[in-house]
Amino acid sequence: VNAGAPLSISRRTRRTPYSDRVQAAGPTGYTVYNHMLLPTGFAGLEDDYWHLREAVQVWDVACERQVQLAGHDAMRLAQLLTVRDLSSLTIGRCMYAPVVDQYGRMINDPIITRVDDERVWVSIADSDVALWAGGLAAGMAMEVDVTEADVWPLALQGPLADDVAAAVFGDEVRQLGFFRWARFAFGGEHLLIARSGWSAQGGFEIYLEDASMGFYLWDAIVQAGEELDIRPGAPNLIERIEGGLLSYGNDMTREHSPLECGLDRFCSLDTVSLTPQTSLGIDAVRAEASLGVTRRIRGLVIDGDAITPPTEAWPLSVGDIAIGSVGSAVWSPRLSTNVAIAMVGRRWCASGTAVLVHTSDGVRDATVVDLPFPGGARR
Amino acid sequence: VNAGAPLSISRRTRRTPYSDRVQAAGPTGYTVYNHMLLPTGFAGLEDDYWHLREAVQVWDVACERQVQLAGHDAMRLAQLLTVRDLSSLTIGRCMYAPVVDQYGRMINDPIITRVDDERVWVSIADSDVALWAGGLAAGMAMEVDVTEADVWPLALQGPLADDVAAAVFGDEVRQLGFFRWARFAFGGEHLLIARSGWSAQGGFEIYLEDASMGFYLWDAIVQAGEELDIRPGAPNLIERIEGGLLSYGNDMTREHSPLECGLDRFCSLDTVSLTPQTSLGIDAVRAEASLGVTRRIRGLVIDGDAITPPTEAWPLSVGDIAIGSVGSAVWSPRLSTNVAIAMVGRRWCASGTAVLVHTSDGVRDATVVDLPFPGGARR
Repeated sequence: VNAGAPLSISRRTRRTPYSDRVQAAGPTGYTVYNHMLLPTGFAGLEDDYWHLREAVQVWDVACERQVQLAGHDAMRLAQLLTVRDLSSLTIGRCMYAPVVDQYGRMINDPIITRVDDERVWVSIADSDVALWAGGLAAGMAMEVDVTEADVWPLALQGPLADDVAAAVFGDEVRQLGFFRWARFAFGGEHLLIARSGWSAQGGFEIYLEDASMGFYLWDAIVQAGEELDIRPGAPNLIERIEGGLLSYGNDMTREHSPLECGLDRFCSLDTVSLTPQTSLGIDAVRAEASLGVTRRIRGLVIDGDAITPPTEAWPLSVGDIAIGSVGSAVWSPRLSTNVAIAMVGRRWCASGTAVLVHTSDGVRDATVVDLPFPGGARR
Repeated sequence: VNAGAPLSISRRTRRTPYSDRVQAAGPTGYTVYNHMLLPTGFAGLEDDYWHLREAVQVWDVACERQVQLAGHDAMRLAQLLTVRDLSSLTIGRCMYAPVVDQYGRMINDPIITRVDDERVWVSIADSDVALWAGGLAAGMAMEVDVTEADVWPLALQGPLADDVAAAVFGDEVRQLGFFRWARFAFGGEHLLIARSGWSAQGGFEIYLEDASMGFYLWDAIVQAGEELDIRPGAPNLIERIEGGLLSYGNDMTREHSPLECGLDRFCSLDTVSLTPQTSLGIDAVRAEASLGVTRRIRGLVIDGDAITPPTEAWPLSVGDIAIGSVGSAVWSPRLSTNVAIAMVGRRWCASGTAVLVHTSDGVRDATVVDLPFPGGARR
């Protein structure tokens, strides 16, 4: 949704190594994410959506800042941050891992990458994890430097991403497993490339460390993808709701727990080595698990014609009872209905439950459904 | 500067209790500050500037989030965050206080308000201080709850602010001293109002705690100010550069120390009770003071016609030597020159030093000057 006025920018709303290329491509909008510019679309939400599902896009996601933990205690601090057991996070792997506080509430939902023995990158959603991790490390006098690394992710997403990546980085990139990374030669450097990204269509994230190579990398990818109809793109609201990909700040906030967010499989509650001394929030999440959550992330199908996506949480009700809220919603041209992600009270979580959504433009009927939506997840 | 595309908004770029009134007034742009909408102007940068200096404006600065420290250790944690001695921060006072890490580097430059014995509000610039303070408190097992409070500041700024405030809250508000607060009756509540604000023209910040009263408060102020030509406004780039008010993320970042930022008078280096156990960064800042800083915040006058304000740091040089950078710059219609705030190497800090500014549109001659600019500070 358009704010109704241009984004005003300054040094504080930081540019990326790709910003000039992005601006030249004519984005339809920008947002600010981790104090950095993020374009939100190029050909319109629905055109971008279909193209992402059918072809391949290059995304400036430099705003996925890398919080670097470096030093003897790097892995100790990484484990303290999350309730997911990181003991299998060997060099060459990445893990999606909920970062929670001592009360088991969500601070961020990053991908954590083991770069080497004593270096970890935490690829963050929109909150200053460097401050949380840095505060914890200072408070506990850990031997670890917490910094925002000079790393500028560029994503290649869509079903043809492998073909473009192979043309630029060599055929070996095709062998990369999901959430695995390796280094690939490019322009005299060896770029860290992972099979990951914030869409359900597959692809790669390229962790550029030399900002001065931004245009060179962007142009090489665009040129290699020309015959495959590559276009600039961005995380797409329709695609990510259909795929059940949660957005921190939209679908979940500091109020929510990873279990409420449906991230159960990323919570290693049975790992005995995890204690509040090694994983700050583990006992809080275990306690919640034993009591049972009171609300849960669910899909919703909202009746009626195309809605305008929410700019604030929309209340949910059944009769006169407030039962939750909608954080994200949009018209799906493929499913010909409105799709949404909502936090729903436990009693009303069952698929098929009829609820009311109090949108900014009035009340609509809706039905609770499973995430992802049909055909939303291709992985 | 306009990003060249609208700001895209969602729940994540949070609205405020005043957003509908702001939008109805037709802002010329928005930025995102602490994950929240902040309008950047209404009648144009120069019109807004003159009006702010001559009349009175109402500003939606709800994005100045209040990080609340509550509990037995609230003041202990507040002191740990800053190198300014808070022992005189009694109830009814506010203090501008640099928040620094253990290396003495700037994390934020908030105003800290003592709300009651065991409750402190940290009114933050654009970084997630709740995460830094929360991480420290968790790491040190302090007895304090760190939360973002449901408080929505509205500012009244300009030379006629006292008249408008008196009309709405009673004549006693005129007696409020600078950086003092008191509670004033309004609509059945007792609002915390401080004499403060992010301009050099004087005025108040009203800390609304009941979001549902947002329109009521806004409308009461606009109505009371009608005869005084009150208008909606926003922090103004020209006014704040002339006044020497620093912007975190623009003029200073995590790389800089409070001494480099010229905040010496807010660093209590001689207070013996401050140690790294009670004020995390104090020894680092003391060490820097004894060595002398290597760079310093200074004013610049930039030659030539009106420049376009920077969207990234502009390098400074003398001959072939890189000597610093410019974070903020703008044309001053009152001084008929370009004014700027820059970080300048120690050797080149003297007033009158000739330097070169490498703007996005070419090189300009410039001269180092003192902050604030002539006539910039009225307090």
